[in-house]
Amino acid sequence: MLYFSGFCTILRSMIDELNILDALLPELAMRADVALGPGDDCAVLDLGGGMLLLAAVDQVAGDVHYVATDTDPAAAGAKLLKRNLSDIAAMGGEPAWALLALAADGRRADELLAFCRGVAAAAQGYGVSLVGGDLAALAAGSRTELGSLTILGRIAPGEIIRRSGAAAGDLLYATGCFGRSFESRHHLDFAPRLAEGRFLAAGAYADAMIDVSDGLLLDARRLAAASGVSIVLDPDAIPRRDEANLAAALGDGEDYELLFTVPAAREAELRAAWPAAFAPLTRIGAVTAGRPGVVDPAGEDLSRRYRSGYEH
Amino acid sequence: MLYFSGFCTILRSMIDELNILDALLPELAMRADVALGPGDDCAVLDLGGGMLLLAAVDQVAGDVHYVATDTDPAAAGAKLLKRNLSDIAAMGGEPAWALLALAADGRRADELLAFCRGVAAAAQGYGVSLVGGDLAALAAGSRTELGSLTILGRIAPGEIIRRSGAAAGDLLYATGCFGRSFESRHHLDFAPRLAEGRFLAAGAYADAMIDVSDGLLLDARRLAAASGVSIVLDPDAIPRRDEANLAAALGDGEDYELLFTVPAAREAELRAAWPAAFAPLTRIGAVTAGRPGVVDPAGEDLSRRYRSGYEH
Repeated sequence: MLYFSGFCTILRSMIDELNILDALLPELAMRADVALGPGDDCAVLDLGGGMLLLAAVDQVAGDVHYVATDTDPAAAGAKLLKRNLSDIAAMGGEPAWALLALAADGRRADELLAFCRGVAAAAQGYGVSLVGGDLAALAAGSRTELGSLTILGRIAPGEIIRRSGAAAGDLLYATGCFGRSFESRHHLDFAPRLAEGRFLAAGAYADAMIDVSDGLLLDARRLAAASGVSIVLDPDAIPRRDEANLAAALGDGEDYELLFTVPAAREAELRAAWPAAFAPLTRIGAVTAGRPGVVDPAGEDLSRRYRSGYEH
Repeated sequence: MLYFSGFCTILRSMIDELNILDALLPELAMRADVALGPGDDCAVLDLGGGMLLLAAVDQVAGDVHYVATDTDPAAAGAKLLKRNLSDIAAMGGEPAWALLALAADGRRADELLAFCRGVAAAAQGYGVSLVGGDLAALAAGSRTELGSLTILGRIAPGEIIRRSGAAAGDLLYATGCFGRSFESRHHLDFAPRLAEGRFLAAGAYADAMIDVSDGLLLDARRLAAASGVSIVLDPDAIPRRDEANLAAALGDGEDYELLFTVPAAREAELRAAWPAAFAPLTRIGAVTAGRPGVVDPAGEDLSRRYRSGYEH
C-alpha cells in the first residue's frame, strides 16, 4: 500500500503542475448545442427535440490506477468502465454506449484481450454497448498500458443534477462509506451508484451532486467551489470503510460514492423513500453561505489539517 | 525516415498478434439503438426521432505516430483531432463534439498544454466543441505521451455511407494522392476530407466509402472484405505524392484520403458536379464480383507483391 502512497505523491506533484485541462477547457468557445461544457462530471449535449446526451471520458493506467502485476486485467478493464459509469451516475443519467482506446507496450496479447473482455463484460452487465475501439502501440520501452474510455448516456431535460446547484440551507448527504479503497479492493470491486443517481434525479431530491473519486474532501471542495457555497462537513458523521481513520476517509479517494445536497424541506421525504436495496444514505454535513470551501462544525478549514485527496 | 520504418516493423508484428479489438468487438451484443456497431469508420447510434449520432475513437502516441522530439506538440494534437475527423468524413457526416484523454510521463507541462491547445485550435477551426477531457499520469519511467480522442458527429438517416455497400460494376474513386506522408509532413498537415464526404453523402454518389489511413492497399482490402467484392486497382492510375514509388503509394499509410465506389451510371454526373475547390478526384479502379481482395488489372493479387500498409 506504500506503493500507492508513493504514486500518490508523484501524481500530486505532477498533476499540480499539469492541471492544464481544468484551465484550458473552460476557455474554449462552445457550440450553441452544448448545454453544459467541461467542468462537471459529464458534458451535456442538446440534440434537439428534448433529447440530451451525456458524455465523459476517463482513463486507467497500469501501475497508477492499479498494480499491474497484482491485478487481474479483466478487473482493471471493468474498473475503467465503472469509473465512467460513476460520472453518469453523478449527473443522474442513464449510461448507453461506450468507446474504448487501449495502448500498450510490453504486455502480452492475452492480458490485453482479458482487459478488453473485462470492459466488455462490465458494459454488458450495465446495459451499455461497446460501440467502438482502438488499439495502439505505445513507444517501445514504455512497458505499461493505458486504457481510456468515453461513456455516452441519456437524461431527460430538467433531471440533470449539476455540481453548481447547492444552496445555503441544503443538507449534505453521501451514499456508502469512505477510505481504505485500495487496501479493501473496493477500488476494483465497487458498484457505481447508477440506481441511486437516477432515483435522486427522477425525484428531484438533490440540488447538486458529484461523484467522490478523488477523495471526499477534494470532491466536496469542488462541489463547494462550483456552487459558490461553504460546506460544513461533520467528521464524526462520515461512514468509514474498514475502520479507516479520518485522514483516510477524507483523502484516500477511489470511493466512487455520490455526494449531494438536499433542500432541508425534502429531507424527510427522501429518507422515507430511499429504497432499502440502495447503498446506505448518510447525512454528513450542511451547506451555508460563505467563502467556498469545506470546514468542520467548529469552522476550521479541513483542507489545512487533512490532505485533500489526489487527482489521477 | 528509417526511424518510422523501424517502428512500422515493430508495430506490424505487435499488432498482428494483438488485433484483438477487431476480433472482440463484433462478438458483442448491441443495444437496439445501435444502428451500426463496431467495424466501420464510425459507430452509428439511433437516438430516435430521426436523429443519428456518429461516434469514433482514435489515438496518437509519441514516437509511434510522430517523432516526439521533432514535432511541435500543437501539430501532434491537431493530428489527433484530424485523424478522427477523417473517420467522420468517411461516413459522410458532420463533426460536432470531441472528448480528449491525455496521459504522459516525463513530458514538460508546457509541451502537454501545447498539445491540448493544438487539439482545441483544430477543433475550433472545424466547428467542433471540445466538451470534455481527462489528464492522467502514465507509470513512472514510461517517458512518453498518449492522446486519445472520441469524436461525435451527426448525420441524417439515409445519408450514411458504409464500407459494406460496394457492388460489382461500381467504379473505384479516391480523393487526393498517396505515399510519402511522413517524408512530406502530410501526416501532420493534411486536411480531413469533410466537405468531400458530405458532398458524396448528400448527393448519394457513393455506394461504399472508407478513409485511407493505414495504406491504400490495406484499406482497399478492408472495403472489399466488408462489401464481399473484388477490387481491381489500377497501379498506373494512383496519384502519387512527391514522386512516391508504387510500393509507397500502396503501403505508406497516413494519407487521410477518401476511397469510395460509385455506380457507373452516376460517374458522369459526379465528375461534372465535383467542386473545383475540393481535393482532386481520380478513378483508380473498379469493383467486380469475386473473391474479396485487391487485384491489378491482370488479376494478380496485389497483397502478394506489396506490403499492404500498417496498422497503428
